Amino acid sequence: MKSADDLFKEFKILSVSEFFKKNADMLGYTGKIRSMTILIHEMVTNALDACEEAGILPEIRVEIDQKGESHYEISVEDNATGIPLKFIPDVFGRMLAGSKAHRNMQSRGQQGIGVSGAVMYSQVTTGQPATIISSTGDEVWKVRMNLDLQKNAGKIIEKTKIENDGWRGTKIIIEAKDVTYNRSRYSPYNYLRMSSIANPHARIEFIEPDGTKIIFPRSSKEVPKPPKIMKLHPKGMTTDDLLVMARNTKTRKLGSFLRTELSRISKKKLDEIERVSGVSMEMNTHRLTWKDAEKIIDAFKKIDFMAPSSEGLIPIGEENIMKGLSLVEPEFSIAVTRSPKTYRGGIPFIVEIGLAYGGKNEAGIDIIRYANRSPLVFDQGGCVINEAVKSIDWRRYGVNPDSTPLTLFVNIVSTHIPYTSAGKQAVAMEEEIYNEIRFGIMDACRGLKRFLSLKRRAYQKKQRKESLMKYAPESSKALSKLTGENPDKVKDLFIKLIEKRYA
Amino acid sequence: MKSADDLFKEFKILSVSEFFKKNADMLGYTGKIRSMTILIHEMVTNALDACEEAGILPEIRVEIDQKGESHYEISVEDNATGIPLKFIPDVFGRMLAGSKAHRNMQSRGQQGIGVSGAVMYSQVTTGQPATIISSTGDEVWKVRMNLDLQKNAGKIIEKTKIENDGWRGTKIIIEAKDVTYNRSRYSPYNYLRMSSIANPHARIEFIEPDGTKIIFPRSSKEVPKPPKIMKLHPKGMTTDDLLVMARNTKTRKLGSFLRTELSRISKKKLDEIERVSGVSMEMNTHRLTWKDAEKIIDAFKKIDFMAPSSEGLIPIGEENIMKGLSLVEPEFSIAVTRSPKTYRGGIPFIVEIGLAYGGKNEAGIDIIRYANRSPLVFDQGGCVINEAVKSIDWRRYGVNPDSTPLTLFVNIVSTHIPYTSAGKQAVAMEEEIYNEIRFGIMDACRGLKRFLSLKRRAYQKKQRKESLMKYAPESSKALSKLTGENPDKVKDLFIKLIEKRYA
Repeated sequence: MKSADDLFKEFKILSVSEFFKKNADMLGYTGKIRSMTILIHEMVTNALDACEEAGILPEIRVEIDQKGESHYEISVEDNATGIPLKFIPDVFGRMLAGSKAHRNMQSRGQQGIGVSGAVMYSQVTTGQPATIISSTGDEVWKVRMNLDLQKNAGKIIEKTKIENDGWRGTKIIIEAKDVTYNRSRYSPYNYLRMSSIANPHARIEFIEPDGTKIIFPRSSKEVPKPPKIMKLHPKGMTTDDLLVMARNTKTRKLGSFLRTELSRISKKKLDEIERVSGVSMEMNTHRLTWKDAEKIIDAFKKIDFMAPSSEGLIPIGEENIMKGLSLVEPEFSIAVTRSPKTYRGGIPFIVEIGLAYGGKNEAGIDIIRYANRSPLVFDQGGCVINEAVKSIDWRRYGVNPDSTPLTLFVNIVSTHIPYTSAGKQAVAMEEEIYNEIRFGIMDACRGLKRFLSLKRRAYQKKQRKESLMKYAPESSKALSKLTGENPDKVKDLFIKLIEKRYA
Repeated sequence: MKSADDLFKEFKILSVSEFFKKNADMLGYTGKIRSMTILIHEMVTNALDACEEAGILPEIRVEIDQKGESHYEISVEDNATGIPLKFIPDVFGRMLAGSKAHRNMQSRGQQGIGVSGAVMYSQVTTGQPATIISSTGDEVWKVRMNLDLQKNAGKIIEKTKIENDGWRGTKIIIEAKDVTYNRSRYSPYNYLRMSSIANPHARIEFIEPDGTKIIFPRSSKEVPKPPKIMKLHPKGMTTDDLLVMARNTKTRKLGSFLRTELSRISKKKLDEIERVSGVSMEMNTHRLTWKDAEKIIDAFKKIDFMAPSSEGLIPIGEENIMKGLSLVEPEFSIAVTRSPKTYRGGIPFIVEIGLAYGGKNEAGIDIIRYANRSPLVFDQGGCVINEAVKSIDWRRYGVNPDSTPLTLFVNIVSTHIPYTSAGKQAVAMEEEIYNEIRFGIMDACRGLKRFLSLKRRAYQKKQRKESLMKYAPESSKALSKLTGENPDKVKDLFIKLIEKRYA
């Protein structure tokens, strides 16, 4: 039998990068194709977020170059604001660092892990540093850097100032092994095609390893509203949230703290909170105890508040979804942006559905999933979107799930997407989200059903007309004999009648 | 348009505990029942690992007490070696700290997140500190502690030395809200029942909130072999692994470093590695470059090595699986421990299958999943075990998946279980693991098929016997008339014949 001292000799503390190095599959790095697509995903996500937050129409350039067997160089360039030199090591070399995770704001990234994860993967498969070229408008800096895994920190190996010809933006170049390239459903090609559908305001240029240049053009010139930081809604808060905020606020009195830092709290509501919770709104915010905070949160549960504002949520919009879906050149398409709802009490979200029929679609339903406009390519099995799609009684809408040529587009927009893992490829089964996806699909399906039944009627009409036309000569002859009229005149009349009836 | 400086004003660095607080669902804390079971799971996992590593027959005591609406106190006590006072804050209050993650060894925990995650959940839902009582044999310490989320560190609030009456072990007591208790499939009750099946050497005492005391008794008194740290196998290593090890080794020459710190490298293999890689085995290990390390890893891929040793893997064993399954009092059970295999080139694993028919089983296949003896209760949808089970052609084995009363037990044993997320409830789709599960099920099913067809034959026999018996009096009468023999004698003879034929 061993003693406690024996057992604790090996006690160690890992850094978060060491953890994700050991568990790279949790970030999605499993398999050569998937690893390649995840790398592209992390870099493109950052580029699009950077453009959006600054209010810039994105021009993204992605290039993949083959260096050897399962060995590639990948670069992604954007035209966003650039990154100040001193932040470069943290942005690309430190996990859990960023400007997104702690703000209640819609963005593609929300963890501060993604792009540092890409640098980590590059480094542990090739031993090569990442190269970052960035300019905020003045100087252009080229930085070669590593991720110090034990410290979870970026380490600059070399930095060079280079001549600027007016360029502003960021370019990241990494090398990776254990990756490969093709054009399958799970490939960077399809990932970028899907990104283009959900981001019709972005122009994406893509150079494949064989030199083929693909442009996913911009189909909308409207810059999306930049995301907005939203105040937390009382119904979506925990006691711990409230205490952490109270500790960090500059507002002295509890009442004015609640009114200024939470949403939907009017002066009248404040009286109600005081009455229901029994906590004085005059108290010093910094003296708030757990017990009092808990009383306030309990009061929040009992009191009615206006639903959270959704002004910080930026859906793609029905028109732009249709523009995006035009990529498959459908015969018919329809889009639905549902009105904002909340899950877990107070986290606002919006579901958007698009349906495109025919055109380049193959037989069956092709589900394309998005969260905050970012394509979800993997782990469909565990995603609320697939569960919702499976629950639909498709035949009611004239759809045969195995043969009707359909693209089903689903986008979930929220300040906090409840991903099931750090790899961010599946959304958790939250009932409110599940229901909204179902309602959205049913909405869109009603439009599709009308189209399909019109299409069916038109087809039946065409068939009936064709069979009448086929018998027109003979029928005219018979009619002419019966009436004694000129056969050609009868035939003309007959054909005119058919044409009129089946116009 | 915003500038880079505007955007980077909000740049911040989160700690890993802040990250998992914000993304508690990634640790499995979603829903009241699931959250309760995850808390129990993390604490029991730690207790069982601690006993096993020390070679102690586990006596675990779990108690759940209701304190209010969705508010419970939970305690788990073990009889392991105890935890030295100075390690208590790190074990229970610092994520990514532990003795398991960095060692190549089979254990239930492998991340150093779980029990600190439980303390975190307790703290953010109730504001209450955790209480740890532990003795390594001498003093008993009672510690009340918090998790400092910003620092990711345990903070002792109060420590008291208490009288020891010879006790040794650890007891953790936490309070949690947003949890609830029942006896459903996803409950702590079922979790402990499943734990007991896979750990027949453990005695688990469980006090439910209403005071009901349940004992899951020990059905085996054999202490499992303690887990063993295993050397890495050349085929399962990356260039980065090799470099990190080379940097930290005390062995001066590359050749002796490889021989002593990796497995399956003989002197002869060393010559082959030198020849294939072109790297001198005489070189100073600390001067190993990425390029040379890569050449060695490439050589590893080309060279044949003996399969990794599996002596560090501890399967439950067929006999003990049957003992565990005896809990459902089956009519028939069978267990298969497959021989060791590897995935990703060199990570060893073993699959164990148990099948139990009839008894307390309800209609249909009840799949109970385990990894390193730890029950996997959630996320079955995304787990390789479910995929493998779905792929089996059950009817071939006389099983109707919807009506045959079956428990299917699957345990995966490995030094590194490829979980799909930090919540550790589903195992990733690794092809070798998938295949082994399938083969194991098919092995077990062949035994089940024999039993079922015997059972079917016995049933048919019984039916035939019954119908013959039914007609025995009449037939005997007829025979007696025909032969002139005494009717009773004929009947006796007739019944004896039937009895003999259908014994």
